[in-house]
Amino acid sequence: TRGGKVPVTLIRCDGYVCERESVEDGNIAFRGAATEQVMLVWNERPRTVLLLCKKDKSLLPTVLETAQNLMSNQSLRVIVEPFVQTEALAKGMNLEPFTRGDKLENEIDFVVCLGGDGLILHVSTLFANAVPPVICFNFGSLGFLTPFVYEDFDKEIESVIEGNLLMSLRMRLHCTVFSEAKPDREFHVLNELVVDRGASSYLSYLDCFCDDKYITTVQADGIIVSTPTGSTAYSMSAGGSMVHPSVPAILFTPVCPHSLSFRPIVFPDSARLRICVSQDSRAVSWASFDGKFRQQLRRGDGVLVQMSLYPVPTINKTDHTGDWFGGLSRAFNFNMRAQQKPLDKIDEKPRH
Amino acid sequence: TRGGKVPVTLIRCDGYVCERESVEDGNIAFRGAATEQVMLVWNERPRTVLLLCKKDKSLLPTVLETAQNLMSNQSLRVIVEPFVQTEALAKGMNLEPFTRGDKLENEIDFVVCLGGDGLILHVSTLFANAVPPVICFNFGSLGFLTPFVYEDFDKEIESVIEGNLLMSLRMRLHCTVFSEAKPDREFHVLNELVVDRGASSYLSYLDCFCDDKYITTVQADGIIVSTPTGSTAYSMSAGGSMVHPSVPAILFTPVCPHSLSFRPIVFPDSARLRICVSQDSRAVSWASFDGKFRQQLRRGDGVLVQMSLYPVPTINKTDHTGDWFGGLSRAFNFNMRAQQKPLDKIDEKPRH
Amino acid sequence: TRGGKVPVTLIRCDGYVCERESVEDGNIAFRGAATEQVMLVWNERPRTVLLLCKKDKSLLPTVLETAQNLMSNQSLRVIVEPFVQTEALAKGMNLEPFTRGDKLENEIDFVVCLGGDGLILHVSTLFANAVPPVICFNFGSLGFLTPFVYEDFDKEIESVIEGNLLMSLRMRLHCTVFSEAKPDREFHVLNELVVDRGASSYLSYLDCFCDDKYITTVQADGIIVSTPTGSTAYSMSAGGSMVHPSVPAILFTPVCPHSLSFRPIVFPDSARLRICVSQDSRAVSWASFDGKFRQQLRRGDGVLVQMSLYPVPTINKTDHTGDWFGGLSRAFNFNMRAQQKPLDKIDEKPRH
Amino acid sequence: TRGGKVPVTLIRCDGYVCERESVEDGNIAFRGAATEQVMLVWNERPRTVLLLCKKDKSLLPTVLETAQNLMSNQSLRVIVEPFVQTEALAKGMNLEPFTRGDKLENEIDFVVCLGGDGLILHVSTLFANAVPPVICFNFGSLGFLTPFVYEDFDKEIESVIEGNLLMSLRMRLHCTVFSEAKPDREFHVLNELVVDRGASSYLSYLDCFCDDKYITTVQADGIIVSTPTGSTAYSMSAGGSMVHPSVPAILFTPVCPHSLSFRPIVFPDSARLRICVSQDSRAVSWASFDGKFRQQLRRGDGVLVQMSLYPVPTINKTDHTGDWFGGLSRAFNFNMRAQQKPLDKIDEKPRH
Repeated sequence: TRGGKVPVTLIRCDGYVCERESVEDGNIAFRGAATEQVMLVWNERPRTVLLLCKKDKSLLPTVLETAQNLMSNQSLRVIVEPFVQTEALAKGMNLEPFTRGDKLENEIDFVVCLGGDGLILHVSTLFANAVPPVICFNFGSLGFLTPFVYEDFDKEIESVIEGNLLMSLRMRLHCTVFSEAKPDREFHVLNELVVDRGASSYLSYLDCFCDDKYITTVQADGIIVSTPTGSTAYSMSAGGSMVHPSVPAILFTPVCPHSLSFRPIVFPDSARLRICVSQDSRAVSWASFDGKFRQQLRRGDGVLVQMSLYPVPTINKTDHTGDWFGGLSRAFNFNMRAQQKPLDKIDEKPRH
Repeated sequence: TRGGKVPVTLIRCDGYVCERESVEDGNIAFRGAATEQVMLVWNERPRTVLLLCKKDKSLLPTVLETAQNLMSNQSLRVIVEPFVQTEALAKGMNLEPFTRGDKLENEIDFVVCLGGDGLILHVSTLFANAVPPVICFNFGSLGFLTPFVYEDFDKEIESVIEGNLLMSLRMRLHCTVFSEAKPDREFHVLNELVVDRGASSYLSYLDCFCDDKYITTVQADGIIVSTPTGSTAYSMSAGGSMVHPSVPAILFTPVCPHSLSFRPIVFPDSARLRICVSQDSRAVSWASFDGKFRQQLRRGDGVLVQMSLYPVPTINKTDHTGDWFGGLSRAFNFNMRAQQKPLDKIDEKPRH
Repeated sequence: TRGGKVPVTLIRCDGYVCERESVEDGNIAFRGAATEQVMLVWNERPRTVLLLCKKDKSLLPTVLETAQNLMSNQSLRVIVEPFVQTEALAKGMNLEPFTRGDKLENEIDFVVCLGGDGLILHVSTLFANAVPPVICFNFGSLGFLTPFVYEDFDKEIESVIEGNLLMSLRMRLHCTVFSEAKPDREFHVLNELVVDRGASSYLSYLDCFCDDKYITTVQADGIIVSTPTGSTAYSMSAGGSMVHPSVPAILFTPVCPHSLSFRPIVFPDSARLRICVSQDSRAVSWASFDGKFRQQLRRGDGVLVQMSLYPVPTINKTDHTGDWFGGLSRAFNFNMRAQQKPLDKIDEKPRH
Repeated sequence: TRGGKVPVTLIRCDGYVCERESVEDGNIAFRGAATEQVMLVWNERPRTVLLLCKKDKSLLPTVLETAQNLMSNQSLRVIVEPFVQTEALAKGMNLEPFTRGDKLENEIDFVVCLGGDGLILHVSTLFANAVPPVICFNFGSLGFLTPFVYEDFDKEIESVIEGNLLMSLRMRLHCTVFSEAKPDREFHVLNELVVDRGASSYLSYLDCFCDDKYITTVQADGIIVSTPTGSTAYSMSAGGSMVHPSVPAILFTPVCPHSLSFRPIVFPDSARLRICVSQDSRAVSWASFDGKFRQQLRRGDGVLVQMSLYPVPTINKTDHTGDWFGGLSRAFNFNMRAQQKPLDKIDEKPRH
């Protein structure tokens, strides 16, 4: 298997039992409905790393230095995006650029991200099928999905290569756009699909189906179909709950619904949801995928959404619950009060 | 096995595969983390039915008539609550009353409820371990969990006895009250555990732990720890999402939290949550279980909550998604508008 | 004063005292900050009516018949929109079309609307300054602002002409668009101004000022600045409170704000609010006015909003509180439960 | 008028006009429905100050020193609560204790509070009728209503005595408990009246009336009737909007309502609201007033709420809008994000 990904073993604990699963081709996928804590074990030392960074000139020296470090100190083959390779060449450094397709899917053992949360969404767009484990470093900014700090890079990378690390298998949604009743483009989203009214002043009229059965018609600014990872992104702004990344669920969160009685809904991961622009709609709607790739939907057009078999495995710093609550307070001031008031004697009252 | 429960087979489909599971002792339990649609197959004809009804004198003639019907037409052994037996005796009818303990757990093949949603909570309190399949009839009132109408009683009961029915396995929460650091009373709830400030005018100060790790301290009127079944009860009034009954999740919904940044959280079913009255709390708090059994919690006391292995299996009229959305619109006017306005030409605008 | 509007007297009761106010030119305006119930008294019999209807061909026979009725039976001069005049001519009927400007402002004594809520927004766009009293008839659809049913047309019109009627003085917002630091277009809105991200996938970054003092920067889908009348339109979908039409207030409701701690704000009617696209914004934003007249806002551009001196006086069927709650339950099923559950004995619990 | 309060002049600006109002008896009251910014002018130098503090032993040295300061440096007569007088006597210092009734109402020119927000609620309970201007100092804790820091005490007190200060006239609610159809106890609240289910597990069933007309029946944990000042206290936790203190309005905020379509309502200050325990209620309810004075309400009992004529005038540090937003960010982290993310190039997306 020279040149291919190294085989790995996953140890899955669902809260009931732990199971070892040998993944000979290195392609990490869901095997059942629910997943809990998963431990990564390399069956061979990893060979190839994809190094990603933000398109920010000021970061490039750090990126090239990091690439050199990974090659020299860890004997890893380093693959970069074309714009980094160009810069590296100008500095007399020879790095291997990736090309979409086989090399990425079949050779990358793990991914290193230098930058904010947005890079993980970028990883998701690069890998339509199995995604290698990803480790995310931040440079002081307060990312939700980036628990590792760059200062500890060497130590953390050694831990990764050693293995026996906990990972969150972050569910993705496989979205198929239907246009004139025919399947059109496909997307894999890590956060959410949004169908909204765009710049129209008319509400979206969206017919919603679950497992091919009609559920309801939503009149709203839009609908968010979100993964648990996306539950703390747009869905939360629209009133959705925060869903732990290991809950096997799909969130269905309306944006400014016209009906007072509409509430965000949490579906099981097995749900096949279909959102169609109603024939009664006065205007077109728009679909977007992790905030990008905006597509117009005409009356009758829609998007079919179901869980992707291929999650994005992100390496945990502590474990998936610890990292999650850490991210919540880091990025959202979750449940922080400016300062607890001391107990006082006379003016006790519940609030203020 | 004469006298015991009849063995059953469950066919579980989790959206990926379907599995047949032989349940020799008739005790339905979770075997894995997630459960999807489940089909009930009787390996033998069911023999014993528990007939439950509301404590409402005007219903008694109907109940006695129903009991007679089940005995005569279906040759079932009918067990009733003591207050019904007393009434039956006065009418010269001999019915078998249940006593807590072995007979219930080991002999009841299925349960028939005549009345509203509250009866299902009552079923849950009767069976601390495995719960037999339950079929719920309403008398015209608009229950959320009672999809069957009494008019069709004979036909529906024949379907039940025939088997091959879809069921929702409704998760329960196993709650252990800790008092002075020692485990005290235990409860199984189908809807929710609530810890609140009761009549105190001070906010509850509650230290919250997940899997023995400290998460956060909540200052609020209270906290609701809810099953998906309970997600449309108190949790929804407090702003929680509606969670489909087959999502393996535990809801953690604050009631009027002091912090603006607190949001309802959805945990995986494997989470072990512990809610303790903080040592900084100015007052005691109170725990209640499915709205009953109020317990005082002093500083340091708390409740440990985890998924019960034994769900309440409720028989579906259509399937679990169909019944669920039916219940939502029946009981909550979910997403109903008084009347859609016709398209008009001049005064088009998004709302009003 | 032949040809001008008839003078009226307003009797204002603010909950403390009632005051008679003689309005010689018939131009109804706010004279103080707060207004409560207002009674309309005609000092002379009204002479001129503006008859408005939806652009719906099927309605035209009814409209022409109504015009004939007002002319013949009530000796009123009837003015219509040009498209109605054209239709009338084709039927050999001579109706007077309006032209924007003096005639509308100076001669119309009251306005009759045949149709839904959207027509009142249309009235608001016709009258930039003083608006005559408006009576709104619905044809069976469930309008929020249209309490009168067309069946009672003759009786209701006679009441209007007689006077001594209660009115709601519905506040409008005067919006001035600023482009490159210069005032540009102006709008009077009865519901709301919205500044949003339109079709952009970037959040709006909006710097907000009150009375020229910087308040906060909002990252959100958008901001709604709404009147009390608009509080039950878009603002309510975004989580704003329902504000009684006689509260002298301006609502400031964020749409899907990024910060968890943002809440809808209610300002006094004297507040001068300015919403500007931040220099840090990644994209342009868009302003719309009662759901129309979409305007692009570049970085640094903004909208200044303050209360208009000229309200839209709508004639009440009962009084402003009665009409308001009537509209809420008619249009939104406000606080309706499908059916109250009867008291039951055994299965009492708080919810479900 | 020796011995009485000094006369003052109020300059009221409602956003339209400013009016000077001479208040000969020093009793500050509302004269109209709405109030905007109000400026305080002393017609004579103030003579008598009420000095209030928390019942906290560690504060007493500071309080006694402050009292000495006010007497010696400002020649003010200082009145204190009895528990402070007792402590002062033990230290050989002679301070005048207050007795409820005439002296408070007729002689106190202004009030100095040393401590948190709770003290202002205490001020409100001391003065059932006109309340003197109040200045609130905090000791480093983050009060919402206490903009002044104690370090600047001397300078701030001199400004107060000089006058020409802006004040917020904070509306209070006059609550009359009705028991068996007869008026019983009365309360003046600065934050809110709450009617709730207390320790009962049954929902409150509350019939609600506005100006003696039936509006709706609320099934909920409870109802909050709040002033604008109270809008950022309990009402906000229950989902109510933040209402600027100069909006003449009464908030009506349900706590965990059973109906999905219920929303918080904002009434005009002229509204007379009555909340009664429904005859259909299964249990008693409880009323509390600014979080205290818990009263049981039986079926048919209720509370009548209307605006009090006598506001609590609090002295502003900047002006009422500046102080309000200052308090919001100080006490609630209003609209704070941990850190704005810098603009990045590749991973642009709306959220996360």
